[in-house]
Amino acid sequence: MHNRHMNDIEESVMKPITIRIQPIDNVAIVVNAPGLDAGTRLDDGTVLTERVPAGHKVALTPIAQGGKIIRYGEVIGYAVESIAQGQCVTEHLVQLPTPPELHELPLATRPAPDREPLEGYTFEGYRNTDGSVGTRNVLGLSTSVQCVAGVTDYVVKRIKQELLPHFPNVDDVVALNHTYGCGVAINAPAAIVPIRTLQNMARNPNLGGEVMVIGLGCEKLQPSRLLQEPGDEQPLKVMDPADLAEHALSLQDEQFHGFGDMVDGIMAMAEKHLAKLNRRQRETCPVSELVVGMQCGGSDAFSGVTANPAVGYASDLIVRAGGSVMFSEVTEVRDAIHLLTPRAATPEVGQALLREMAWYDDYLNQGKADRSANPSPGNKKGGLSNVVEKALGSIAKSGTSPIVDVLSPGERIRKRGLNFAATPASDFICGTLQFASGMNLQVFTTGRGTPYGLSVAPVIKVSTNSTLGNRWHDLIDLDAGRIATGEQTIEEMGWALFNLILEVASGRRQVCADKLGLHNDLVLFNPAPVT
Amino acid sequence: MHNRHMNDIEESVMKPITIRIQPIDNVAIVVNAPGLDAGTRLDDGTVLTERVPAGHKVALTPIAQGGKIIRYGEVIGYAVESIAQGQCVTEHLVQLPTPPELHELPLATRPAPDREPLEGYTFEGYRNTDGSVGTRNVLGLSTSVQCVAGVTDYVVKRIKQELLPHFPNVDDVVALNHTYGCGVAINAPAAIVPIRTLQNMARNPNLGGEVMVIGLGCEKLQPSRLLQEPGDEQPLKVMDPADLAEHALSLQDEQFHGFGDMVDGIMAMAEKHLAKLNRRQRETCPVSELVVGMQCGGSDAFSGVTANPAVGYASDLIVRAGGSVMFSEVTEVRDAIHLLTPRAATPEVGQALLREMAWYDDYLNQGKADRSANPSPGNKKGGLSNVVEKALGSIAKSGTSPIVDVLSPGERIRKRGLNFAATPASDFICGTLQFASGMNLQVFTTGRGTPYGLSVAPVIKVSTNSTLGNRWHDLIDLDAGRIATGEQTIEEMGWALFNLILEVASGRRQVCADKLGLHNDLVLFNPAPVT
Ligand SMILES: [Ca+2]
Ligand SMILES: [Ca+2]
Ligand SMILES: [Ca+2]
Ligand SMILES: [Ca+2]
Ligand SMILES: [Ca+2]
Repeated sequence: MHNRHMNDIEESVMKPITIRIQPIDNVAIVVNAPGLDAGTRLDDGTVLTERVPAGHKVALTPIAQGGKIIRYGEVIGYAVESIAQGQCVTEHLVQLPTPPELHELPLATRPAPDREPLEGYTFEGYRNTDGSVGTRNVLGLSTSVQCVAGVTDYVVKRIKQELLPHFPNVDDVVALNHTYGCGVAINAPAAIVPIRTLQNMARNPNLGGEVMVIGLGCEKLQPSRLLQEPGDEQPLKVMDPADLAEHALSLQDEQFHGFGDMVDGIMAMAEKHLAKLNRRQRETCPVSELVVGMQCGGSDAFSGVTANPAVGYASDLIVRAGGSVMFSEVTEVRDAIHLLTPRAATPEVGQALLREMAWYDDYLNQGKADRSANPSPGNKKGGLSNVVEKALGSIAKSGTSPIVDVLSPGERIRKRGLNFAATPASDFICGTLQFASGMNLQVFTTGRGTPYGLSVAPVIKVSTNSTLGNRWHDLIDLDAGRIATGEQTIEEMGWALFNLILEVASGRRQVCADKLGLHNDLVLFNPAPVT
Repeated sequence: MHNRHMNDIEESVMKPITIRIQPIDNVAIVVNAPGLDAGTRLDDGTVLTERVPAGHKVALTPIAQGGKIIRYGEVIGYAVESIAQGQCVTEHLVQLPTPPELHELPLATRPAPDREPLEGYTFEGYRNTDGSVGTRNVLGLSTSVQCVAGVTDYVVKRIKQELLPHFPNVDDVVALNHTYGCGVAINAPAAIVPIRTLQNMARNPNLGGEVMVIGLGCEKLQPSRLLQEPGDEQPLKVMDPADLAEHALSLQDEQFHGFGDMVDGIMAMAEKHLAKLNRRQRETCPVSELVVGMQCGGSDAFSGVTANPAVGYASDLIVRAGGSVMFSEVTEVRDAIHLLTPRAATPEVGQALLREMAWYDDYLNQGKADRSANPSPGNKKGGLSNVVEKALGSIAKSGTSPIVDVLSPGERIRKRGLNFAATPASDFICGTLQFASGMNLQVFTTGRGTPYGLSVAPVIKVSTNSTLGNRWHDLIDLDAGRIATGEQTIEEMGWALFNLILEVASGRRQVCADKLGLHNDLVLFNPAPVT
């Protein structure tokens, strides 16, 4: 999984530090800032033939002209000219072969690594009647349209003040406000994405199956539709009038004379659901009930070197323990898709990966946008040679497990194991879509820093460098920068994250964003027009 | 402007009531629910030859086969067969001529109505150094990216608790959160829309010119860009380092060690701007400084009969007094555009109207959406024969003034008078774009009811029917349904609204949404992809 040369914390500041991610890599990344001078001898015996700046690659073996340059265990390019051991592998030495067309890619060609299952790891969660398990016990007020947001914000405050103290087992009450529901092209083909996202959000395990929808009445997206299963055209059993009255309410209902009546109506409905949620108790659950979403944002040169590989290691541990992991962010993986399709568990899963890439290519083309700004000048200065290397740094979060399934944006998870949940890279849209897909805990890596947090699921923030980890001491939950300083190996950090995930999922430890009450709004992905 | 047959409130319940909007109309709308029976004699002598349901049209003159059917002073269609005086003009009797192609439309062909200027009307507003006038005195915390929203929400609460009490002349502190700034195709052609919207929002007269931007640091949309004028590539004068530090702050700034430092930094910046805002006093300003945005949402069969014509009457009064009015909602006016282009003040303005229509047609086509669901079966049951009649009901909000200018989405207003501000019909996007365009007060008509409110500008909500006006007694500011019951004429209601606008703009009367603290989030229009 990795190649760490230093375990001695005391000496780490002085000694040359490089990181090789996979044993077969023939390049490593220089960690020491601002770089290592010519003549520096690395632990494996390599002597630098020239200065290599921090974040840049040094060749660990001679590489012939046209030879493979290997990082993350993958070919990131070919040598433009012969490269000596100890030489700095600068951008202009790396030739990026044109990636093959989507339809030519190898599917499911790589056998799954043979790894022992991890037994005996558990967490304390809230088991739901549908078998899913929540890591929190939250009453979510779903909304069918933004028109009601002012009212739901008001009522949530009142519920927290007046009702929540009577239901001590309930963690929180959250209005799931959004900007969809009316003034949108609801019959456009792409409208399926925001609609199923709303339907599935309401069913996230952290909300305990207690669905209540606040609607207006005249909106295009009717409240009853949020009570249906995605794809169902017919109302469900839940839709008999008594059930409907228990689960959905419209402000335009003639029974409400003025604002006070609306507030009373919502609070009466909330009280019933709070009473049910309050009966729930945490119980010991196997890790197979965890659904962890992996994300990154505000990445830096060390994202792909420290935090993301550690997250990938933890991801493999979760999968070995029978749990589920989602990795996402189509625009972050797109340029290394030819290195992902072989990891598909079956050719069908490989086809699904290609289908999501093609869909996004088309979506960007329609908006006259493309991926041309990748990698940015800042990325290159930081040592990233090309888009493939950049994408591999992001994909590192997925570890090495086979990809068992692909979820279109907002679809609910169907299989345990490593899933690719297709989402934009936008932090909030990705978080919202993973939440709709059933994610009950999120891990977020950041190099530049973001105060990102969600009210509906705990978010563990992992820093890629210790400068950020130290400066944002109360905003970062785990500092993976200690991999770069030699204080910890990728494995050690991966295990630390795995254990932290179990602590947080069990409610024994609160993440920074929750301690401070910092929560971002959920944001729907609406690829269709507004009207 | 109108034709009211009843002024006697006592008798109004019993007597037949119909509404003719313009004197040249040859149809009127039946108001009495559920309808008027055959044999009913109207005040103009017309005797109904058959039953006419409420909301439907009755012919006030005989109309020959192929003859013009006139409503709102415009041809809404041609008679399929000859129609007798007193007959119900049902949908199948009205032939909708295919509207001409956009490039064939008459531009600026209708002379402006000759109307006396209105002198002597004023309001008490906050005059800004750039000459604009606010109706409120609000500190707006602009944000360059959603990443900071959790922090700005937290800080705004602290500012309100700890600082605002020391600055009694400041009405409110508002975080201008949004979902743009990163994870977006910022170089796509359509990205200009959300970016200039953010730039212009910060300059809305209600925010007093005290721009402060909270950013993260690594986002695509840099905080300094919000301090620039739209279209400026070069930083402005404000961008020298001292000025920048007064107006913009990034959470990733190395000076901030942890969350507490960030909060302190934002509060210190806010205090300076609050001190400046606190020095402002309301002063008497002419109505020419008002910029009123007109909008509708949750419309019903009476929207185009009561509230919208009354709003149109008030709109004409504002324009006669030298003020500015924006009407908007492209998808609501699109099907009567051939009746709007003649009202353009110049051929150039007419061309600009066409340009915005064509842009939106293209935008909807790309998303495989169209206007085919218009009017809905519900609309037709309510008496609307076709898309032109429906659009005319919406356009009625614009009154009869010439259109002096057309604003692309989010552009700042340039000319006094009646402006078409091109926006989607979505209530929140339209409100946000009108706010960016400089709107300092909004009028919102609704038939079904919505608790819509904005924290940055007062919103006067006008009901189209008294059933709603009475039931939502604490959410509706003015009940235009009294036009239908015969209690008030369109002129009287228009004057009442005009006077209410001046009261609210002067801070002498609080609108319902502000009394209750019901405010919806601003929503950007981003026609470009997310990434
Ligand atoms: Ca992201
Ligand atoms: Ca630390
Ligand atoms: Ca909010
Ligand atoms: Ca609207
Ligand atoms: Ca009333």
